[in-house]
Amino acid sequence: MSSVGIVTPQAYRFTEALPLQSGASIADYTLMVETYGTFNADKSNAVLVCHALNASHHVAGYYADQPKNVGWWDNMVGPGKPLDTNKFFVIGINNLGSCFGSTGPMHTNPATGKPYGADFPVVTVEDWVRAQARVADVLGITQFAAVMGGSLGGMQALAWSILFPERLRHCVVIASTPKLSTQNIAFNDVARQAILTDPDFHGGDFYAHQVVPKNGLRVARMIGHITYLSNDDMAEKFGRELKTGDYQFGYGVEFEIESYLRYQGDKFSDYFDANTYLLITKALDYFDPAREHGGDLSKALAVTKAQFLLASFTTDWRFSPERSREIVKALVDNRRTVSYAEIDAPHGHDAFLLDDARYLNFIAAYYNRIAQEFA
Amino acid sequence: MSSVGIVTPQAYRFTEALPLQSGASIADYTLMVETYGTFNADKSNAVLVCHALNASHHVAGYYADQPKNVGWWDNMVGPGKPLDTNKFFVIGINNLGSCFGSTGPMHTNPATGKPYGADFPVVTVEDWVRAQARVADVLGITQFAAVMGGSLGGMQALAWSILFPERLRHCVVIASTPKLSTQNIAFNDVARQAILTDPDFHGGDFYAHQVVPKNGLRVARMIGHITYLSNDDMAEKFGRELKTGDYQFGYGVEFEIESYLRYQGDKFSDYFDANTYLLITKALDYFDPAREHGGDLSKALAVTKAQFLLASFTTDWRFSPERSREIVKALVDNRRTVSYAEIDAPHGHDAFLLDDARYLNFIAAYYNRIAQEFA
Repeated sequence: MSSVGIVTPQAYRFTEALPLQSGASIADYTLMVETYGTFNADKSNAVLVCHALNASHHVAGYYADQPKNVGWWDNMVGPGKPLDTNKFFVIGINNLGSCFGSTGPMHTNPATGKPYGADFPVVTVEDWVRAQARVADVLGITQFAAVMGGSLGGMQALAWSILFPERLRHCVVIASTPKLSTQNIAFNDVARQAILTDPDFHGGDFYAHQVVPKNGLRVARMIGHITYLSNDDMAEKFGRELKTGDYQFGYGVEFEIESYLRYQGDKFSDYFDANTYLLITKALDYFDPAREHGGDLSKALAVTKAQFLLASFTTDWRFSPERSREIVKALVDNRRTVSYAEIDAPHGHDAFLLDDARYLNFIAAYYNRIAQEFA
Repeated sequence: MSSVGIVTPQAYRFTEALPLQSGASIADYTLMVETYGTFNADKSNAVLVCHALNASHHVAGYYADQPKNVGWWDNMVGPGKPLDTNKFFVIGINNLGSCFGSTGPMHTNPATGKPYGADFPVVTVEDWVRAQARVADVLGITQFAAVMGGSLGGMQALAWSILFPERLRHCVVIASTPKLSTQNIAFNDVARQAILTDPDFHGGDFYAHQVVPKNGLRVARMIGHITYLSNDDMAEKFGRELKTGDYQFGYGVEFEIESYLRYQGDKFSDYFDANTYLLITKALDYFDPAREHGGDLSKALAVTKAQFLLASFTTDWRFSPERSREIVKALVDNRRTVSYAEIDAPHGHDAFLLDDARYLNFIAAYYNRIAQEFA
C-alpha cells in the first residue's frame, strides 16, 4: 500500500469570535488543516479525522523537508488503505489549544500582547467540534460521509453526531468512551498535578521564564504511557529484563521498562506544551454527553441521525470494550444502525493506532460500503 | 471485640554489622518493635507480622499520648480478633530503612556524621527478613507459630519460608505476589522519578536544606493510591461527582476523586520520608525468589517446610489473584500443605486491611487451628 506522499499543511484563520462552553470566547484563531485525496462533484465524499491527545492535523503522508515525519494514522489513511484516499477526501484538523500550529497557549493573547499560558480558555470536546464545523463551512462541506476518531478523537466523532446530526452520514468511534471513569480522571489529575507543581511551570507562564516544566511533563507522559499499554503486552515486551545485567542497588535505570518509559517521557517533554497537556486532559474529563440528560446516554444520543461504526480492543483497560458497549446499547435503544467489533488484540489502548489485519479489514469493509453510497 | 489497648514501642539495637544483599553492610542499627499478648511456656506461640510500604511496627493498639494513633492492622490483631492476642504473642517490627523509628535514611551515617540520605544502602526483602531474625534471636524465639504479612509484608513472610524454613510452622501470605509485574515496576518507577526530579530532593540530601520534596512524594502517593483501589470501588465511592457543583473550567479541585487523591498525597508527604519511599519501592521491584532458580518458583519454594495460608482479592489489580495462584501452584508442586481463599471483595488491593467478614473469618479459622497445635 502506498502513502499519500508529500503533504502540506494549511492554516485557516477565523476572525469571528468562537463562543466556548465555559462562557468565554476566543476572538481570533487559526486552525491547521491537512487534506488528502480529492472532492467528488457534490463534495459528498469528505471524511473528517479527529485527533487524540498528542496528535495533530498531520494524519497521513510526510512533509517534503521532513521525510520521516509520517502522519499519525498513515496505516489507516492513504491510497488503497482502509480509509482510501482514492475514494475519499480526508481532512485532518489540529484542535484549538493544541501545540502543533493551531492557536494555543503559547500564542499571543490579543487582549494582553503576551502568551496566553494558563489563561488560554479551557475548551471542551464540543468546542473543538464547533471550531471544526467552521472549517467544514469554509471547505463547502454540508455533510461528511463520515466523521472518525480514536480515543479522544472518538469522543469528537460522537459529539459531531449529537451537535450536528445532519452533517454526517456515518460516525466512526474507535477505542473510545461516553465519559471518563473515575480511575481515568484520577490518572489525569495526577498527571496535571505533576505539571502544576513543577517549579518550572510558573503558573503557566514558563514561556516568559525561558524554561519548560520538563519534569512534570515527563512524569505525566510516563503515567499516560502505562495506561496506553496492556499489562500483558508490557510484560511480553519488557518483562523484568534488566538493562544493566544485574541489580544495581541504586536509582538509575535498571529495568528495560524504566528505560522505555523514561525515554518516552523525555521525548514527549521535548516537544509537547505543558498548558496544552492540561487543557486536553480537562477536555477528556469534562466529556459526558449524558450529563445534560440526567446521565441517560440513550437520551443524549436520541438526536443522532448517523449510522455508526464502533470498535474496541479486548486488552484496552483505559477505555475498555465495556465502555464502547454502553454507546452501542444507547444507539440500539434509539434504533440506530450500528456495526460493532470487539477486537481481540494484545496491545491495549494503543491498538487503535497499530497494524492489526482484523481491525484494519473491518474498517476497510465499512468504508467500502460507505463509498458505494456515492459511487 | 476489644483492642490490645495502650502499647509501647521498644527499640532493639544491634551493634554487629548486618551484611546486605547488595554487598554493602549496615554497621550499627536499631529496629523498633511492638509486641502484643504473652509468650506461652516454650515460646511456641509467637507470630511475626510484617508490614507493607507505609506501615510500621505499630500493628495494633494505641499510644497513651496518642489515642487516635491506632495500629494499622488493629482489626486483625487483638483479644478475640482473628490473630487472637489471648492465644498468640504477636510481634510487629519496623523495617530497616523505614521512617518510623528504625534506622533509616534520615539518621546519622556513622561513617560521615551526616544523615545517610540517598546513601542509605538499598535493602531487599531478604535483608529485612535477616534483620527481623535477629530480633527473634534476642526474644528467644526459635520457631514462629506463623509469619504473616499482606502485600509487601506477604513477600517477607514468603522470604522467611525460604531463608529460614525451620523457623516458622505457618506462613500467611495475603494479597501478595512472587514478583512484581512489568506494570507494577512501571508505576514504581514513575513514582520514583517524581521524587528524584523534584528540585527539593537535592539528590537525597534535602535534610541539610531544611526542605522536603513534597511535590514529588505527593504525586508518588497519588499514583500509588490509584493502584490500591479497584476501578469499581473508586467509581462507586467517587463516581464523577463534583466537589464544586459544576464544571469550573480551570485547574483547581473539581471532581471528588481529585479532592480525595490530593488529600491523600498531601497527608502522606507530611509524614513520609522520600528516601524511604525510594528504597522500599526498590525492595518491591527486586523481590523475585525464583530468579536464582532460572525463574522456576517451584524450585525456589522447594526448601520451604511451613504450611501456608494464602488469600487474595478478586478486584485487586495491583497483585491480582492470579499472582497468588502462582504461589499456590508452586507450593502444591512441592506437596506443601496450602489453604487458599480468593475473596470476592470490591475494595481492590486495600481489601487486605479492611473489614470483610469472609476474609477475617477465614484468617480467624486458620489461627484457631494453629492455636490447637500448642493448646
